[in-house]
Amino acid sequence: MDISQGPKLVMIGGGTGSFTLLSGLKQYVNDITALVSMADDGGSTGQLRDELGVLPPGDVRQCLVALSNSPKARELFNYRFEEGTLKGHAFGNLFLTALEKMTGDFAQAIELASDVLRITGNVEPITLSNIKLCMKTPKGTKISGEFKIGQTDFNTSRPEFWLEPKAVLNPKAKEAILKADMVIIAPGNLYASLAPALIVPGLGDALKKSNAKKIYVCNLVTKPGQTDGFKVHDFASEVERLSGHKFLDFVLFNTSKPSDELLQKYAHDGEFAVNIDNEPLKAAHYRAHGAEIISERYHKPKKSDLIGESRTLIRHDPIKTAKQIMRIYFS
Amino acid sequence: MDISQGPKLVMIGGGTGSFTLLSGLKQYVNDITALVSMADDGGSTGQLRDELGVLPPGDVRQCLVALSNSPKARELFNYRFEEGTLKGHAFGNLFLTALEKMTGDFAQAIELASDVLRITGNVEPITLSNIKLCMKTPKGTKISGEFKIGQTDFNTSRPEFWLEPKAVLNPKAKEAILKADMVIIAPGNLYASLAPALIVPGLGDALKKSNAKKIYVCNLVTKPGQTDGFKVHDFASEVERLSGHKFLDFVLFNTSKPSDELLQKYAHDGEFAVNIDNEPLKAAHYRAHGAEIISERYHKPKKSDLIGESRTLIRHDPIKTAKQIMRIYFS
Repeated sequence: MDISQGPKLVMIGGGTGSFTLLSGLKQYVNDITALVSMADDGGSTGQLRDELGVLPPGDVRQCLVALSNSPKARELFNYRFEEGTLKGHAFGNLFLTALEKMTGDFAQAIELASDVLRITGNVEPITLSNIKLCMKTPKGTKISGEFKIGQTDFNTSRPEFWLEPKAVLNPKAKEAILKADMVIIAPGNLYASLAPALIVPGLGDALKKSNAKKIYVCNLVTKPGQTDGFKVHDFASEVERLSGHKFLDFVLFNTSKPSDELLQKYAHDGEFAVNIDNEPLKAAHYRAHGAEIISERYHKPKKSDLIGESRTLIRHDPIKTAKQIMRIYFS
Repeated sequence: MDISQGPKLVMIGGGTGSFTLLSGLKQYVNDITALVSMADDGGSTGQLRDELGVLPPGDVRQCLVALSNSPKARELFNYRFEEGTLKGHAFGNLFLTALEKMTGDFAQAIELASDVLRITGNVEPITLSNIKLCMKTPKGTKISGEFKIGQTDFNTSRPEFWLEPKAVLNPKAKEAILKADMVIIAPGNLYASLAPALIVPGLGDALKKSNAKKIYVCNLVTKPGQTDGFKVHDFASEVERLSGHKFLDFVLFNTSKPSDELLQKYAHDGEFAVNIDNEPLKAAHYRAHGAEIISERYHKPKKSDLIGESRTLIRHDPIKTAKQIMRIYFS
């Protein structure tokens, strides 16, 4: 490692989970590359893909905004139109879409957006292939599309996932992983949001090959019909299964209990706090690291989140989580 | 005049005319303020006003782009979506609209856009009132809205125009005029585009009061049903009538003849090159200045100009026109 520089950090993930972690980590790390899952096809993003054939801008936008140092541009990129034919579109999605249509090159679109947003680090699509996430349910039915998969009940059956057409790993993503000192797998929707990143051919190999410390930040709640009853080790195992490699060095999980009020609210939707399975964690090939890393602020869903996904309220605290990651890095 | 600085130039106008002149003038002048007509209600701009209640972004966008020093951002702001529910919207219009909705302040929206586009000078709405242009036809019918007025045949009757509700002159526009060394009235649609600027209460007074050299750059072609048979002096007289003051010091008009092919194309639509009326020009209180200032390039209308106004092909040459303006300034 070059002694004149801080660590090279790579974050792999989708939308909200990456956003939260990046917001915190950029306080401690300058050299950040956010590798973004590219199978989103719901909401504003899905509409733009359908109508204009572009790559999905939504998760890229969230990562760009997380790394932005311009408060006004951040606010602008997340602004959602509330009326008329533009209703539900995040401005940043339109920005990336217009640039991609104009230049024919999504990477150039991200570059100009990075400039306008004055970001710390880089944002790279995990693949530049225009792909859809696909899966087979236990009954053998094929489901296409991240949004639909997110709504499918497959009874915690750990199903098979693939991308159509075959995705090509972005060479810049591969390079970033191989050069990284630390790779973070962000929390988020395990199958609908992390899977399409982890199953890109070549990603698992790169993760295995990289000398970086590889840390998975485990989800906080389970998802009904998909990860019911999953404990920390189950999440970590699925992350590795999807990537095709046992690559994790550390798993960071939360140890503090959300308020009863919040837990009840979640239970009502069939969602439960992820429990800690001490025995499997002790026996695991990675080191399990528990800490109090949830946010105590109440996250109100915004009136403007019209086409967007619904927002959860039990969240990682950006700073607490980033501090634990740095602690692991320096351990 | 401060000897350490170049001239302070103010341009008053609407869309394409201002765009063309500003593109040329910024090569010679650094201190430019473009005052923009704010009654546009057609196309992408009209749809955004209708659906979101915002001030008209289209003409402001054109002036910002003309003054921009970032080729990529220029292209982005003028990019029009070609498909789906966004079809016909210029990206720059969505940018200004999102910012206005977000901040509730159109002036702030222009400020951030100016920053992103890295513009020379300033762009100021002539009024921040949300107004519509109105007129009375010779038969006494009231017509509301710039777009409708642009399509109305009123038989060159020099009708009465007003704004609803009453417009308040932007104080920054007034200040710019009073401090200017040179004020240019841009060519353009005389009634549908220049009138809503010229009739803003207080504008004529400011023009009259200002010590600037006041130059009108005359239109190149007549508009059927509105300015049929108008010669240079007729246009200049109407500009002054609309403002309520004989304020002009110079009128710059074109002396070169467009190609027969182009003239025939225009004649087909009832449009004719503006003739020069030597006697009235000699007798006028302003100085008439003729020069060859049209462009020899052929302007193809773009496929992407879907909601936009139709494009004329006989155009002012930005550099030739700017050079003549500078010649008048230094005369």
